[in-house]
Amino acid sequence: MSEGAGDAGLSHYRADGSAHMVDVSGKATTRREARASGRLRTRADVVARIMAGDLPKGEALATARIAGILAAKQTPFLVPMCHPLPLSAITIDFRALADAVHIEATVATTAPTGVEMEALTAVSVAALTLFDMVKAVDATAVIESVRVESKSGGTHDWERDD
Amino acid sequence: MSEGAGDAGLSHYRADGSAHMVDVSGKATTRREARASGRLRTRADVVARIMAGDLPKGEALATARIAGILAAKQTPFLVPMCHPLPLSAITIDFRALADAVHIEATVATTAPTGVEMEALTAVSVAALTLFDMVKAVDATAVIESVRVESKSGGTHDWERDD
Amino acid sequence: MSEGAGDAGLSHYRADGSAHMVDVSGKATTRREARASGRLRTRADVVARIMAGDLPKGEALATARIAGILAAKQTPFLVPMCHPLPLSAITIDFRALADAVHIEATVATTAPTGVEMEALTAVSVAALTLFDMVKAVDATAVIESVRVESKSGGTHDWERDD
Amino acid sequence: MSEGAGDAGLSHYRADGSAHMVDVSGKATTRREARASGRLRTRADVVARIMAGDLPKGEALATARIAGILAAKQTPFLVPMCHPLPLSAITIDFRALADAVHIEATVATTAPTGVEMEALTAVSVAALTLFDMVKAVDATAVIESVRVESKSGGTHDWERDD
Amino acid sequence: MSEGAGDAGLSHYRADGSAHMVDVSGKATTRREARASGRLRTRADVVARIMAGDLPKGEALATARIAGILAAKQTPFLVPMCHPLPLSAITIDFRALADAVHIEATVATTAPTGVEMEALTAVSVAALTLFDMVKAVDATAVIESVRVESKSGGTHDWERDD
Amino acid sequence: MSEGAGDAGLSHYRADGSAHMVDVSGKATTRREARASGRLRTRADVVARIMAGDLPKGEALATARIAGILAAKQTPFLVPMCHPLPLSAITIDFRALADAVHIEATVATTAPTGVEMEALTAVSVAALTLFDMVKAVDATAVIESVRVESKSGGTHDWERDD
Repeated sequence: MSEGAGDAGLSHYRADGSAHMVDVSGKATTRREARASGRLRTRADVVARIMAGDLPKGEALATARIAGILAAKQTPFLVPMCHPLPLSAITIDFRALADAVHIEATVATTAPTGVEMEALTAVSVAALTLFDMVKAVDATAVIESVRVESKSGGTHDWERDD
Repeated sequence: MSEGAGDAGLSHYRADGSAHMVDVSGKATTRREARASGRLRTRADVVARIMAGDLPKGEALATARIAGILAAKQTPFLVPMCHPLPLSAITIDFRALADAVHIEATVATTAPTGVEMEALTAVSVAALTLFDMVKAVDATAVIESVRVESKSGGTHDWERDD
Repeated sequence: MSEGAGDAGLSHYRADGSAHMVDVSGKATTRREARASGRLRTRADVVARIMAGDLPKGEALATARIAGILAAKQTPFLVPMCHPLPLSAITIDFRALADAVHIEATVATTAPTGVEMEALTAVSVAALTLFDMVKAVDATAVIESVRVESKSGGTHDWERDD
Repeated sequence: MSEGAGDAGLSHYRADGSAHMVDVSGKATTRREARASGRLRTRADVVARIMAGDLPKGEALATARIAGILAAKQTPFLVPMCHPLPLSAITIDFRALADAVHIEATVATTAPTGVEMEALTAVSVAALTLFDMVKAVDATAVIESVRVESKSGGTHDWERDD
Repeated sequence: MSEGAGDAGLSHYRADGSAHMVDVSGKATTRREARASGRLRTRADVVARIMAGDLPKGEALATARIAGILAAKQTPFLVPMCHPLPLSAITIDFRALADAVHIEATVATTAPTGVEMEALTAVSVAALTLFDMVKAVDATAVIESVRVESKSGGTHDWERDD
Repeated sequence: MSEGAGDAGLSHYRADGSAHMVDVSGKATTRREARASGRLRTRADVVARIMAGDLPKGEALATARIAGILAAKQTPFLVPMCHPLPLSAITIDFRALADAVHIEATVATTAPTGVEMEALTAVSVAALTLFDMVKAVDATAVIESVRVESKSGGTHDWERDD
């Protein structure tokens, strides 16, 4: 994806550079989907305990999944310039890596703008929740590589290639 | 910090492993502070535009700072097992790196439990907001290294050493 | 209504049984309406005081009605797998019974999925609010029979027959 | 518990009967706890599927538990005359009955007023969430018997005796 | 604009006069825009400090602008009888007057009802935020003249003429 | 009240002038109260209909009162640099003037900082709600004179003298 090829074109600048929620009323209402991912890096034994549900505060994966799904719906209230959108689907999946839990969120809408921010917010809040569930056993855990993997349904589809 | 040395000791397990908001009513009400950091990695020219406030959606740093401060106060509604706390101070700072913007949040409270989650939430939502402000010029930006740097005021102070 | 005849068909299962906000983007956008009811059971003299507005915390019916209307709009933030919907109408009515106040909520939308949960949430929060207004005079009051009465506008209309 | 023996005494009336959030600043700050319960009545086979996590929208119990815990913290924003309180503990438990799932919530705080409303709100939203998870297989399910079981830590302790 | 010429016609009365969220499902979905304005009246030297960003709590204009944009999206949760709408654009501008800061908000949607309340809410919360930023230097500041300036896209366009 | 005599002293400046939630952890926890007022200016016949509850959307005063009470509790989520406080009392009163409805809100807390912003937010949202209830019959109504009337319980008491 080259510079400037995103949802909000350069024409959206205001003369004084002030922040604003850009006008999407001229854009087509289409089914749009975005996928984002991230990781909570921690020790191997903590990864095992997350996957087994064996942590002081209880069932970490279900708690993180539900927190992420709810947060996706809160995106326009958390990220100031995001548009409120009628989200039509949200899923969140976890996968154990050697020293991390991998998180992936997929969000869909039928709307005039995309849902990358909603997918990223779902991943971020799921990761924060995993941290909260493991912090009694690993306060050094780190949230890493929160990024958009793909989006479709807008002016052009896009998939990450690194 | 060794395993199990966090705020929620192992005694907080429930027999069935279910998630719960652990009881902090027996803990001392003291002034507690936590500092967290993270980064939005992007291209050097985008870093320059973030710092200069030259982006399509407008003034990125102020927007991210205010979003992060508001989000810190929303932590118990985003991270399910967090306690509602009377936050007494929140600051967020940004610093330009070669190919990233560094974010640091400091949160204080006078309460029976700590504010690491509030500091991490402030950093995460500030990073999400920066991403939202730059995604029209760099959709490949990545949120990285969101982590606790230090905490004080609980049973023992702690500072990251890596 | 027979098993499986609801909004979310069995095809919505995920392989691992994890919770998700099911995809409604393939469903028709139609005008949909749902009606739900419930009761706060209390003493006859308390019913009289609720209807007369004669309670320590003040005007109970207006407070409960407004709380219920606001809560209907909060449904997707309270019930994790509910979709955010553009609600087009909400009404709440109260009726005195011998030893209870009967609550009825009607909610409408033009959307790809129904509003039973919004109507039930309106009734539940109105009932909770009535309880809050009377608890100084009857701490034993009970919320009962919160249920869907009818729905229309989806694949098929439905009315409760018991 | 006799009439008028609740948290808000009759002296809290306003001359015009208008609703208000009564003044609790003269009350003692003590550790207070409340326990509430309720049921979702449904078919025996649906009870079995709830307990086994075998439902279209996924893991019903974890979803309902987390929704209830989050809702307890939202109580002062849902029930208009409730005070914002620093909740120190929340647990929610489920138990299978013949044709119902029994829900119990326990909430604690250290504050000048009690947490019955928080416990009742946790039960109500957990019940609404269970309904949402099963409505595709039983649209006739009913939320029943939402009530306070006991409270302690205020002027006098109280336990339900019916 | 003559009496009764607003969005909610007299036909929306309920027999008992109770509050309700009126049914807009029969109205046309069109692009609608509303503009509102207001002022924070304060001393001339405080106006200068607001415009220069020289205040104890920091950058007042950016904080007020972002607060106003976020609040516009919260309108249906603040103003009980407002409909949730998919806002498509929000801008807020400030202008220095001799002894006041003038605030103007413009909001757009594509929906079956208008966005006057969203524009007024944006102005009000931006004004409250300005007050909060200056109250350490002028506790006597006053929010004045919060009003609708124009609206378009509904049954008829309207512009204030006083 | 002379310049700089507010809650946030000049020592709260940050070197770069950025917005922050100032540290109140060194301040004394005392009972604090604030009173604010405002007006909705409209036609005399509309004032009469507000007071009589005779408006298309229904009972205006109860709706505005409850909206204002709920909004006071939302202040730290609306006004970015406000501290979350345990509000202990909120009342809102209305009084008919010749061509306006006068609104007064009183808020109390026991906390290390004052509640002027909570009282002003209660008045503003009550006024916005009154506007929403009358806009079908008077779209030209104006919110006026929203201001602090008095505060007590902090470093010094203060009462407006103009």
